[in-house]
Amino acid sequence: MERKFMERAVWIARRGAGWTNPNPMVGAVIVKEGEIIGEGWHEKIGGLHAERNALKNCKKDPRGADLYVTLEPCCHYGKTPPCTDAIIRSGIKRVYIGCLDPNPKVAGKGAEILKDNEIEVMTGIMEKECRELNDVFFYYIQHDMPYVALKYAMTMDGKIATRTGESKWITGDEARRHTHRLRHRYAAIMAGIGTIISDDPMLNVRLENGNNPVRIICDSRLRIPETAKVVETAKEIPTIIAICSGDLQKIRRLEQAGCSVWNLPEEKGHVSLKAVLRELRKQEIDSVLVEGGGILNEALVKSGCVNYVHTYIAPKIIGGESAKTPVEGEGIGKLSEALILEHIKMKKIGEDVLLEGKVKKCLPES
Amino acid sequence: MERKFMERAVWIARRGAGWTNPNPMVGAVIVKEGEIIGEGWHEKIGGLHAERNALKNCKKDPRGADLYVTLEPCCHYGKTPPCTDAIIRSGIKRVYIGCLDPNPKVAGKGAEILKDNEIEVMTGIMEKECRELNDVFFYYIQHDMPYVALKYAMTMDGKIATRTGESKWITGDEARRHTHRLRHRYAAIMAGIGTIISDDPMLNVRLENGNNPVRIICDSRLRIPETAKVVETAKEIPTIIAICSGDLQKIRRLEQAGCSVWNLPEEKGHVSLKAVLRELRKQEIDSVLVEGGGILNEALVKSGCVNYVHTYIAPKIIGGESAKTPVEGEGIGKLSEALILEHIKMKKIGEDVLLEGKVKKCLPES
Repeated sequence: MERKFMERAVWIARRGAGWTNPNPMVGAVIVKEGEIIGEGWHEKIGGLHAERNALKNCKKDPRGADLYVTLEPCCHYGKTPPCTDAIIRSGIKRVYIGCLDPNPKVAGKGAEILKDNEIEVMTGIMEKECRELNDVFFYYIQHDMPYVALKYAMTMDGKIATRTGESKWITGDEARRHTHRLRHRYAAIMAGIGTIISDDPMLNVRLENGNNPVRIICDSRLRIPETAKVVETAKEIPTIIAICSGDLQKIRRLEQAGCSVWNLPEEKGHVSLKAVLRELRKQEIDSVLVEGGGILNEALVKSGCVNYVHTYIAPKIIGGESAKTPVEGEGIGKLSEALILEHIKMKKIGEDVLLEGKVKKCLPES
Repeated sequence: MERKFMERAVWIARRGAGWTNPNPMVGAVIVKEGEIIGEGWHEKIGGLHAERNALKNCKKDPRGADLYVTLEPCCHYGKTPPCTDAIIRSGIKRVYIGCLDPNPKVAGKGAEILKDNEIEVMTGIMEKECRELNDVFFYYIQHDMPYVALKYAMTMDGKIATRTGESKWITGDEARRHTHRLRHRYAAIMAGIGTIISDDPMLNVRLENGNNPVRIICDSRLRIPETAKVVETAKEIPTIIAICSGDLQKIRRLEQAGCSVWNLPEEKGHVSLKAVLRELRKQEIDSVLVEGGGILNEALVKSGCVNYVHTYIAPKIIGGESAKTPVEGEGIGKLSEALILEHIKMKKIGEDVLLEGKVKKCLPES
């Protein structure tokens, strides 16, 4: 076994980022006599799985070869027939699996079927990297809820706008371009109505080859202006408005403009975020990037639904007791109740810094 | 010329950090036939200069050798006689100088005297590194004011305490130990009276071989409790209380306890920070680490006196609209007026992150 082949499989798997949701990203490499004879990745939801792409791309007969695949091959009929069938038919003799399928109903069965067919199977090769590649997918499958990430840009003194509300732009060009790459990776973007009213953002992906996430606006009282950019472009980019109450005429007009209006239960004066997430789950939305203000961010933190935080930090000081910060609301009283982030990554992006981390425990309240 | 010798000189110069103020840190390496035959650094204010220490430590005759020194050798009588004399007498034939003395009355003269004595002189070797080593000293000499750095610890959502005021501890053990190393490097620590009343800190250096900075408390209305730790230990660690008004009896008692009480002009309702800095300059304090709350920090930012910012960031989210942030006060209205930091450094310290940067332009208001 050579680690470099699994590294290659992880590397090519990432090319599916933003296109495979709610499927995982998977990469596969076929090796014969120390040489890669075929490779492939899961390119797009509904398309071939990585193993089938790798087989299809083989430039030599795969009979007797080794297969490196980042995730356990499927053994059930989904949008495509089971990959285990194709592997068995191909004559591959050994399969290296990065990590098992997280779905407890499937986990290990794919590997078993291969073994039953005289194929040598080794699991757990670069397991950590292979799992991390699909944190979103694993969470979605295991918790039956979308993976939620907060994203915000703040100054080095923790402000997302000046006291007068100026927020364009806290970060520089490169960081803002980076945000679009981030958006592309998530299935949905969430914003609060405050952001829509004050900034009128498009919440789209401005990249040459980018995939626009679904837009969700939390708008408990249906205050959204019908001239908002997200409404005006709702026929091109799916746009959901989550409300607790509102004028039926306005709802009808918004629907005619292409928006979906979801009437959901109220919780503590605003639309229940868990209800929003549950509805998104029903739509097979596996991941949500939250570009909210401090109130929406705090409500999500309190709900226990946040999995990840992307913090862009601009090397600026602006001050102001009344300047907005990324997480507001009531906040916690004791430091021991803080939301803890781990696996912290830091990176310079242009003149700015991106700090990211996973939420340590994500225990939903109920 | 070999760069590695100047690198070595910069490296050993740093050993003087915290001990040489308001002198610069300087390192010197003497090289003969490719071998280091002596090295030394400026160890402590009042002690020998680096060049003299290097000569003293020579294990071979320095006649005909090369000297690498990070800063131009002095040519005037200060606390010690001119180093140029010692170099000339030693028979050294070549001198590599990292950077010239920033003092315009001296710059270049040391080098000239050496040249006049048949010594080959080359300047500007690793100039950037050699200058950076002494940012504090250069600023102090050129602006005749102490170098001011803000230091604060905040959460990843920009808070320095929870809404109830809990701030012990935002960061972990390692970051807090690191703070002591930072304090050691500065000649003074400044705090506001709010911090003294709420936290009663010692503001000392808790390191095995650390040098306690002078403590300055900005306390416009002389509210300091006479039982504060900084007052009770004022006989061991110099403690200055900067006021605009106050009860004479209390002032006398504080002075008896060992404090210096400075009565200074008022500006916008609090003691003039520029007046404080000017007084510190008179005491030959070259650098001040500010461990203030948001109000003191903002007043310093507004005064245009801040040179550097050390931001410890804990991977935690605590939220709270009313939770304190590192820079408060009125703040700026337009992003174009922001204080910009550059030369950003980032480093993990335990579970926390340290982001640091130089203030781009530090133009005092008047």
